[in-house]
Amino acid sequence: MTREYCVAVLGATGAVGTEMVRLLHERKFPISKLRLLASERSAGRWIAFGDDTLPVEVLNAENLRGVDIALGATDAAIAREWAPFLQSQGSVFIDNSSAFRMDPTVPLVVPEVNPEDLEHHLGIVANPNCSTILMVLAVWPLHKVRAVKRLVISTYQAASGAGAAGMIELQQQTQDVLDGRTAKPEVFPHPIAFNLFPHNSSIGEDFYCEEEKKMILETRKMFHADHLPITATCVRVSVLRAHSESLNIEFDAPFPVDEARALLAKAPGVRLVEDWSRNYFPMPNEASDQDDVLVGRIRQDLSCPNALELWLCGDQIRKGAALNAVQIAECLCGRFD
Amino acid sequence: MTREYCVAVLGATGAVGTEMVRLLHERKFPISKLRLLASERSAGRWIAFGDDTLPVEVLNAENLRGVDIALGATDAAIAREWAPFLQSQGSVFIDNSSAFRMDPTVPLVVPEVNPEDLEHHLGIVANPNCSTILMVLAVWPLHKVRAVKRLVISTYQAASGAGAAGMIELQQQTQDVLDGRTAKPEVFPHPIAFNLFPHNSSIGEDFYCEEEKKMILETRKMFHADHLPITATCVRVSVLRAHSESLNIEFDAPFPVDEARALLAKAPGVRLVEDWSRNYFPMPNEASDQDDVLVGRIRQDLSCPNALELWLCGDQIRKGAALNAVQIAECLCGRFD
Repeated sequence: MTREYCVAVLGATGAVGTEMVRLLHERKFPISKLRLLASERSAGRWIAFGDDTLPVEVLNAENLRGVDIALGATDAAIAREWAPFLQSQGSVFIDNSSAFRMDPTVPLVVPEVNPEDLEHHLGIVANPNCSTILMVLAVWPLHKVRAVKRLVISTYQAASGAGAAGMIELQQQTQDVLDGRTAKPEVFPHPIAFNLFPHNSSIGEDFYCEEEKKMILETRKMFHADHLPITATCVRVSVLRAHSESLNIEFDAPFPVDEARALLAKAPGVRLVEDWSRNYFPMPNEASDQDDVLVGRIRQDLSCPNALELWLCGDQIRKGAALNAVQIAECLCGRFD
Repeated sequence: MTREYCVAVLGATGAVGTEMVRLLHERKFPISKLRLLASERSAGRWIAFGDDTLPVEVLNAENLRGVDIALGATDAAIAREWAPFLQSQGSVFIDNSSAFRMDPTVPLVVPEVNPEDLEHHLGIVANPNCSTILMVLAVWPLHKVRAVKRLVISTYQAASGAGAAGMIELQQQTQDVLDGRTAKPEVFPHPIAFNLFPHNSSIGEDFYCEEEKKMILETRKMFHADHLPITATCVRVSVLRAHSESLNIEFDAPFPVDEARALLAKAPGVRLVEDWSRNYFPMPNEASDQDDVLVGRIRQDLSCPNALELWLCGDQIRKGAALNAVQIAECLCGRFD
């Protein structure tokens, strides 16, 4: 008989938490008991889980007791608050926040990339940043064959990166603008309707924003390549839930396009979408609600014989967050292919 | 007494033509007579020119007769049809289409970059592609000081690149999607509401689309640098009229950020917009209806000691098309600063 697990979702009512609950059911995760935990404000609500409806309970020690696997969909502060308790009772905490990602004792894992890093976890596994997860799915299959020398990234990131509130703001503000009213930004610092702006995470001393630094540092950690040259320009666009990325990938020698395409066509978690005759490539509306990252427009960079250009779109909430966390849980239970 | 000119606008009723008419008035271009020319379908309409209202007439030889300066805002086929007649009668034809841009006998000019190329025109001057104009305004001031070694570009292009019809499609389709109806693409090949897609120009044998090749080839022509390594990924986004671009600019040696910032702060046609503490940088909604290209987020590329990262937004219809053409006309009349 397959073992079943007591699973908790921390932050179960947010965009990522809701998706985690949906995926646990969809993927038939072996659950003995599912606890949906959230702030006092959200407690008392009910959430569907297949044919059942489960109550949302307060995130506290009592409700975490006995949990085997905790999926974290809260902010970093809440994750830091509950990690010690979860560790002390022997749970595995798979955390989607940035709290532990760069902690050298915590594995940062995309199962298609570095599942072996899970072996040495000490009760916490970190889920990478959304843009990073989507990007490494396309870059890793190439990097395994020929080491990447430099990565230049520009992103086109959906409103869902700011949670459900970001998506609602995009829709409401767009209706306001269409009706001739002024955009009133609340969740985002700038108007998002029919607009775009450099990513609104805080800017460090090196003038890169946090989102960009995450892409750089988290990729290096997962690739075990501490000095891999990466640069990123992260931009928020008026798209609801899937991120897009333009990648320029330089190698030490030319990488034949056909070889890259063949590698990506069979790469796990990747779906090749390119019909050159119809100018049909990955688009965020078609990447939404999909497990796979859509990759296409793979072409020889005309400016550098050793570089390839590549375009991808992936669901920020799904593979960019909830799905990757559930896949980590599956790996830990030995269920990942 | 200042000389006055008989000026014609070819394609006066489109998005770019309308803007040309507005700019000719705004900038007090010395006009003796203004002829607004368009297809039979549009002839008979009236267009405001300051306090006057002028009739739209059919684009034919009779109505072009005696024109000193013709501003072309038509497609390439119409431009090719009328260029010989305009040349034969000694007019100067400043054409915004792609018809003559790469013709070695035709100067391709951004007045802030290569006004000297106007000296040898043979009756035709080409206005570059919109994304290219906006980009070279930011790159040229740096290239003059230290030659660019390689340019990696990703664009975020507005619906206005497909004319007024593209802008209307974006607005109507967005309302449809908000109302729960399916997006019905007509002007664009794919849904544009809350979506984005690789640029819908046709794809060549090198797998770059026409828009990308324009950025590469036109920049080389204007910079008189036939082999300058440039790569571009052009993307259409759900923005109405201003394009944005993420530029990675590599030089032969490090380019101090402060020096780059100082050069761009005083560069003609450029306005520096960067407030790092407020995460406030160029945005397309603020670049719309502006003459200047907004440039910011100038930072040292962490992946390459010789490269800078830079972000810009500019009005696609204005400096990206109509304003640049009117400025070329001003140059030819000796009025450009």
